[in-house]
Amino acid sequence: MTDKTLIVSAPGKVILHGEHAVVHGKVALAVSLNLRTYLQIGLCSNGRVQINLPNIDTCLSWESAALQFLLTTIDADVLNPKAASQEQVDKLRQFAGIPDGCVDTRSLAILCFLYLYGAISASSRYCLPSMEILVWSELPTGAGLGSSAAYSVCLAAALLTANESIACPVPEENGTVRWAEDELELINKWAFQGEKLIHGNPSGVDNAVGTWGGALKYHAGKIMPLNRIPTLRILLTNTKVPRSTKTLVAGVKDKLNKFPSIIGPILNSIDAISCECERTLAAIVAGDSTEESYAVLEELIDINQHHLNVIGVGHSSLDRLCQATALHSLHSKLTGAGGGGCGITLLRPDTSPSVVEASKRALNDMGYDCWETNIGGHGVSLHSPSSLQRDVSQLLTRLTDCQ
Amino acid sequence: MTDKTLIVSAPGKVILHGEHAVVHGKVALAVSLNLRTYLQIGLCSNGRVQINLPNIDTCLSWESAALQFLLTTIDADVLNPKAASQEQVDKLRQFAGIPDGCVDTRSLAILCFLYLYGAISASSRYCLPSMEILVWSELPTGAGLGSSAAYSVCLAAALLTANESIACPVPEENGTVRWAEDELELINKWAFQGEKLIHGNPSGVDNAVGTWGGALKYHAGKIMPLNRIPTLRILLTNTKVPRSTKTLVAGVKDKLNKFPSIIGPILNSIDAISCECERTLAAIVAGDSTEESYAVLEELIDINQHHLNVIGVGHSSLDRLCQATALHSLHSKLTGAGGGGCGITLLRPDTSPSVVEASKRALNDMGYDCWETNIGGHGVSLHSPSSLQRDVSQLLTRLTDCQ
Repeated sequence: MTDKTLIVSAPGKVILHGEHAVVHGKVALAVSLNLRTYLQIGLCSNGRVQINLPNIDTCLSWESAALQFLLTTIDADVLNPKAASQEQVDKLRQFAGIPDGCVDTRSLAILCFLYLYGAISASSRYCLPSMEILVWSELPTGAGLGSSAAYSVCLAAALLTANESIACPVPEENGTVRWAEDELELINKWAFQGEKLIHGNPSGVDNAVGTWGGALKYHAGKIMPLNRIPTLRILLTNTKVPRSTKTLVAGVKDKLNKFPSIIGPILNSIDAISCECERTLAAIVAGDSTEESYAVLEELIDINQHHLNVIGVGHSSLDRLCQATALHSLHSKLTGAGGGGCGITLLRPDTSPSVVEASKRALNDMGYDCWETNIGGHGVSLHSPSSLQRDVSQLLTRLTDCQ
Repeated sequence: MTDKTLIVSAPGKVILHGEHAVVHGKVALAVSLNLRTYLQIGLCSNGRVQINLPNIDTCLSWESAALQFLLTTIDADVLNPKAASQEQVDKLRQFAGIPDGCVDTRSLAILCFLYLYGAISASSRYCLPSMEILVWSELPTGAGLGSSAAYSVCLAAALLTANESIACPVPEENGTVRWAEDELELINKWAFQGEKLIHGNPSGVDNAVGTWGGALKYHAGKIMPLNRIPTLRILLTNTKVPRSTKTLVAGVKDKLNKFPSIIGPILNSIDAISCECERTLAAIVAGDSTEESYAVLEELIDINQHHLNVIGVGHSSLDRLCQATALHSLHSKLTGAGGGGCGITLLRPDTSPSVVEASKRALNDMGYDCWETNIGGHGVSLHSPSSLQRDVSQLLTRLTDCQ
C-alpha cells in the first residue's frame, strides 16, 4: 500500500443536449464540467479512519477495529465490482446510525464511503487500513451536476490506488496524470456501485463522465464515448430555484400523452440537435471553420431552449438567465431537469473578459450563483500538490490543518 | 339599379396557426378579424364617379364619360369573373397616370377599383353608372391583416349589389344582413380578381375570409371553410416594426435546408397544432368543457410562438409583446409573417376589463397599436346606417360631408 498522500479529482457533468428527450428514447449528450471534486487521502498509523466532508459539514472518525465488521459483511472481489445487497446496506445503516429511509446527502455520502472503503479494502486485505480522507467540491450538491458521481469516482480512484489495486502513476512536479484505460474501467465500475447506493437506479452516465471526462452519447440505455470533443468555455449558472426532477419528467410524459402529434416531433427535433451538436464538436476539433461552428452551437442552444420550454420544463428564472446573457450576445439553455436548477451559457474562444464579467455580474445580481468554467475537459486525475490551482491547494491545506 | 345608399363591410384576417409552415405544405388556419373595412356607395346623377379613400389620403373623381373606354377595354361577364389581362392593366395604368412598376398602396387601390368598376358595370350595361364611393378601414395597411382583400370584397359586394347582379337584401332597422351562398361565391370570385391586381399571385385565403368570415383551413393550395367556429375575443397588436415577408420566408427555407432533421419536425408540430386548434374550436362551439378548451388554445399559442422563434421569424418586439401580456396571464403569438408586424393575444370570455385595459396600456406604452376585437365573426355584410357602431356611423357621415 502506498504511503504517500494522494490528491485526486473528478469533474461534474452537464447535459449539453437531450435532457428529458432521453427518457423517450432519444440521444442525449453529457459532457464533463470542470467544476471538480477534490479528494485528499493520507494513509496513517493511528488506527483510525476519518472522512471529512466540509461542504456538508460532516466529519466522521472511527476506530479501525470498529470497522472490522466490514470484512465479514462485505465479501467483495476488487476486480469484479458488485452492488451492495440490501442486507449489506442495512448493516451499514445500522452501524452508522442512519435510520431506514434516511436519504439526506450526508447519510448517503457516509453509506457510499463505508461500502466502497469496505469492499475495496476488504477484498484484498485481512485488516482494514487506517486513513484520513478529505473531500472538497466546487460542485453544488443536488443541482443535477453529478456531484455524487464525482464523489464516488474520487473515492473509488483513491481507495483503489491506495491499496494498489491500480497503479499509482507519478505526476511530474506541477503535473497531473491519469490512469490507464483498464484502470479507468475499474474506477468507473466501483464508482457506479457507489452511485447505486446513492441514487438507487442511476444511468451510469454521471460516473462515466466523472471517470473519462470529455463527452458521451447516451441512447436507449447505452453509453458511447465521443472521441473528438473540444474543451468549450461556458458560464454555469445555478438559479437555485428548487425543482423535482420526478415531477418534471412526469409533466413531459403527460404533455406527450395529451398532444402526441405536437410534442412527439419536438423530441425528434431534440434528437437531431444532439446529433448535429456531435458533428459540430468534431468539426471544431478538426479545425473546420470554427467561427461558423460556434454559430451553429449557439443556434442549437437557442432552439433547444425553446423546445424545453415547449415540453414544459422551462421556468421564469431560466428565461431571465437567457435574456440577461442574450443582452451580451451570449446563448444559454437550461441543463438537466429544468424548472429552475442550472443553465449553461456558451462562451466563444474570443469572448472578451469584459463580456464575461458583465454577464456574471448580471446573473449574480439576479441572485444566481455563476461560475466561469469549461466543459469537455479531463476526467478523474491524480495531482501533485503543486499542480493544483493555488486556491484549491490552499483550501485543502487549510482544511487538513483543521482536522 | 338600386338608388339607395348602401353600406357594406368586410373583415380583415389573421393567421391563427400555420403561418410559414403553410409554405411547406402544412395546414394553416385563417380567421376573420373584426377590424373591418366599410364601404358606402351612393348612386347619383351628376355624371361623375368618385372614390374616396381617406385612410390613404386619396380622393379621385372622373367624368363618367372619361371612363367609357372601360366598356371597350374590359369585355367581362359578370357571372364569370376573370382576371385582368396585362393589356387591360396597362390601359388602366395609362388612364390613371400610374407608371409601370408603381406598386404603392394608392396606385394598386385605384387600379383595383377601376378594374372591378369597369368589369362589373361594363358586363351588364352600355353606359357606366355615376356613383360616389367612400371606403374607410379600421385595418392598418401592409400589416398582413388582409386589408386589401377587405377592400376588394367590399368593392365587389357593393358594385354587384348596385347593378343588381346580386340581390340587395334589406337589413331591418338596426340590422345587418348577408347575401345568399351563391351570391357570396360571386362576391368572392370578383374580390379574388381584385386581389390578383394588387398582389399578383394571392392564395385566395384573404378574400375568402373577408367574404365568409369565420375560419378556414388552408392546405396545399386548397381552401376549406371550418363549419364550427366560436367568436374569440382577442387583442390585436401591431408592433409597427417593418419586415419583409419575402426575406422571412426565404430565411425559413434556408434554415430548413441547413438543419432538415431539426426544423422539419417543427413544421410537423405546427401542422398538428393547427389540427388540434381546429378540434378545440369545435369543442368550444359544442360547449364541451370550455374552461379546459381555452387552456388548450393558450397552450397551443405558447407552443407555436416558440416554434416560430425556432424557425427564425421571431423578433424582440414580439418577445416584449408576449412578456407584457404574460404578466397578465395572457398568451400571445405573432401572426402572419413575423419579424415584427402583428401579434394576437387570446382573451377568455371572462377576462376582466381591468386586465384588458392594463394589457392595452402596457402595449401602448411600448409604442404599439393595440385593438380589443374578436376573431371568427361574420364576413361581408350589408348594414342599415343605424346598425353601425356609433363611431363608425359618425365617421362615415363626417367623411361624406367633407366630399
